[in-house]
Amino acid sequence: MMDTRPIGIFDSGLGGLTVVKEIIKLLPHENIVYLGDTARVPYGTRSNEIIKKFSEENVKFLLGKKVKCVVIACHTSSAVAGDFLKKKFSNVSIFDVVSPVLERLGKSKKKIGVIGTRATIGSGVYSKLNKVVQMACPLFVPFIEEGEIKGDLIKSLVKKYLKNLKVEILVLGCTHYPIIKDVIKKVLLDTELINPGILVSGVLKNNLVKNDQTNDQKREGKGSFYVTDLNERFVKVAEMFLGEKIKVICITN
Amino acid sequence: MMDTRPIGIFDSGLGGLTVVKEIIKLLPHENIVYLGDTARVPYGTRSNEIIKKFSEENVKFLLGKKVKCVVIACHTSSAVAGDFLKKKFSNVSIFDVVSPVLERLGKSKKKIGVIGTRATIGSGVYSKLNKVVQMACPLFVPFIEEGEIKGDLIKSLVKKYLKNLKVEILVLGCTHYPIIKDVIKKVLLDTELINPGILVSGVLKNNLVKNDQTNDQKREGKGSFYVTDLNERFVKVAEMFLGEKIKVICITN
Repeated sequence: MMDTRPIGIFDSGLGGLTVVKEIIKLLPHENIVYLGDTARVPYGTRSNEIIKKFSEENVKFLLGKKVKCVVIACHTSSAVAGDFLKKKFSNVSIFDVVSPVLERLGKSKKKIGVIGTRATIGSGVYSKLNKVVQMACPLFVPFIEEGEIKGDLIKSLVKKYLKNLKVEILVLGCTHYPIIKDVIKKVLLDTELINPGILVSGVLKNNLVKNDQTNDQKREGKGSFYVTDLNERFVKVAEMFLGEKIKVICITN
Repeated sequence: MMDTRPIGIFDSGLGGLTVVKEIIKLLPHENIVYLGDTARVPYGTRSNEIIKKFSEENVKFLLGKKVKCVVIACHTSSAVAGDFLKKKFSNVSIFDVVSPVLERLGKSKKKIGVIGTRATIGSGVYSKLNKVVQMACPLFVPFIEEGEIKGDLIKSLVKKYLKNLKVEILVLGCTHYPIIKDVIKKVLLDTELINPGILVSGVLKNNLVKNDQTNDQKREGKGSFYVTDLNERFVKVAEMFLGEKIKVICITN
């Protein structure tokens, strides 16, 4: 048995491509359908109601593309709309980027830090961890999207947010943050960084194997990458996140 | 004769309230209907097609509120969709924040700088000015919305963008920028700063007087302020821009 249907992945924008990158590394045979809601990015500053509404629309789009499961690559959407989506689409396997972190660190006795958007942190989804310090870092996303990923300015910003954070483990609770992990590493020298994109890829792989749903055939091309708005910048940003060139298709207009 | 109908003003988000502030100063009797498209802010990073589509929807909403004219407070929308909207709604008086700048500086022989979002600058709308230097400052908006409006970090960012800008006049080509005008002033000591919100208020007033369309009755309350998404942060940001407390109504959900 095998299942050649693609894996559906959505994000508020293009940051979710850092998750796609990890999924492709671990599951090189799988076909990918990605949706980035670039017309309405970012979700992290919006209300819970609107985040649920946008997320539901994204899942419906992916289901229309006959995906075998859905990965919520967006941390904000995972934190705010994850349970809502799993209930709403109860016959679909839905994976999110928050649950694998909670599973991995649920019993940890170490001092844990979580950084993310204001909506992710405000959702309180990580408050169930022991000894956790949570911090919204709302300016990281615009910095990264502007390519301000090295040099004095990003270093000052990382220091401003993180220099007083005394933790042993730091969860990079936003798809964008792996891009600046080296800068963070320099400020938090002895801290283990956790990239939830890697964790969810592992959960996804285990699940597909267990349910005999992996694709044994060769992957067709690089996948289908849809966005709700497209401009030249987006293509550059997409390539920064994914680490390779792709063709991006705009589904509006 | 007089016209008690309100003035309609829209912006991609809440920054347009800095324009409302200037309109109220100059036309204290006028009623205001404001729409901030907070569910889809910012426009400055989006494609021209989507900016036109969103802007058209905003004008239709305001016309539904029986406004006597429309002010496009958003520079991005003014630059990218201004002509499109004036053609589309040819029976409505539409004012934008770019035209008054072009009129005021069109014949200037001074060295002019214009700063704005990438979409505003990329539109090339200011290229018709003599001796003009244009620069996108995409990180100013997130800084201001995060309340990072004084201290070392915003000063470093202002320096990074502007310190090599040798101009005699600088146009603050984004609704948010008047909030950091003092920081900019400290970096560009001998430069005259131009706030297009003040210019458009003057044009609007002249037009209403000329057409006998001013409101001679007393202004009713502070006006109606609509947004397409609302959270606690937005209320704080709105008050920062307008300089007074208001009630904000969310038109979705």
